[in-house]
Amino acid sequence: MELALLYSGGKDSTLAALFLDSFYDVTLVTARFGLTDDWEHARDAAASLDYDFRAVDLDRSVAEAAVERMVADGYPRNGIQQVHERALERVADLGVTAVADGTRRDDRVPTVSRAQAQSLEDRHGVDYIAPLSGFGRRAVDRLVESNLDVRVGPSEQIPKADYEGELRELLAREHGVEAVVEVFPDHEQTYVEGLRDPDTSK
Amino acid sequence: MELALLYSGGKDSTLAALFLDSFYDVTLVTARFGLTDDWEHARDAAASLDYDFRAVDLDRSVAEAAVERMVADGYPRNGIQQVHERALERVADLGVTAVADGTRRDDRVPTVSRAQAQSLEDRHGVDYIAPLSGFGRRAVDRLVESNLDVRVGPSEQIPKADYEGELRELLAREHGVEAVVEVFPDHEQTYVEGLRDPDTSK
Repeated sequence: MELALLYSGGKDSTLAALFLDSFYDVTLVTARFGLTDDWEHARDAAASLDYDFRAVDLDRSVAEAAVERMVADGYPRNGIQQVHERALERVADLGVTAVADGTRRDDRVPTVSRAQAQSLEDRHGVDYIAPLSGFGRRAVDRLVESNLDVRVGPSEQIPKADYEGELRELLAREHGVEAVVEVFPDHEQTYVEGLRDPDTSK
Repeated sequence: MELALLYSGGKDSTLAALFLDSFYDVTLVTARFGLTDDWEHARDAAASLDYDFRAVDLDRSVAEAAVERMVADGYPRNGIQQVHERALERVADLGVTAVADGTRRDDRVPTVSRAQAQSLEDRHGVDYIAPLSGFGRRAVDRLVESNLDVRVGPSEQIPKADYEGELRELLAREHGVEAVVEVFPDHEQTYVEGLRDPDTSK
């Protein structure tokens, strides 16, 4: 069964891939706006993990609407949520049996409600799977520690291909760098550099 | 990392085990009241799947309270939910890193809310994991079809070790067989007989 997993190169979506790949033929998929080359980090992480990879293009208007929402809100959550929903719609049209993402139980954004999941499934004829949605933050941290080599640091120093990099870029272009600082609080990002030696896992 | 998975011998908890066993040292755990020998079906399914197995005893008063609730309600949902919560509390005290169950996204019972999960985790110092909670019914059905040999039939003809068998027994003893028919609508159960040939899975 073919499964397309929305992939950023970060620890959550990588862990999601590890959970799914015993059961599905997993392709890691990164959505991009063409504003930056951030998607290449996801491609490189996918290659180092030996997963199939593909990039899909989202319309620039999706990023523009998200940025306007972020500026109006003064925080990024709703804008990122909008982009995630559009990205799920996009991968649901790839002709796969199932689509998935790396959302965790304790995530505040993005979130996909049961009603949203069922709607996506019904409209596109796919299964939507959130393999980490039954795992809390501490369980994910333990699994990452056991299974992945991860680099951690401030958002702007960690190569990653979630929507944040491109949305920051567009925000800076349209509203100046001070808008980026205002909308995005400092927080840490992760980037997966590979798998741990399997002998030391579990 | 040691993980105790609440196990009935049915398809959901068996699929949960398959998802978890690449990452945890999984022990399948069946809670029992000592009213019937139903737990032996779970033990046998665990043996055929080559998992470690253990039975834990729940206090008879838990079953009695659940049965009274079912009779008062006229349906089994809340009574089964009560028992599931008590069973989770019980396995959370086994000294493991994580406890898990087979609840799915679309299940009506049992359900474990995010707040309940966090409370269980905080009070017992364990991770609570619901590996199928990000999977809808159709996705689970597809995975079961690909990975498990399952027997399906009416509840009373399928050997299984969820709480239902023992609660039916207690209900019949205390309120007569007509109470069982009244409280439990006819519905199908599943029992896992083994894994499918791995060459045909995916």
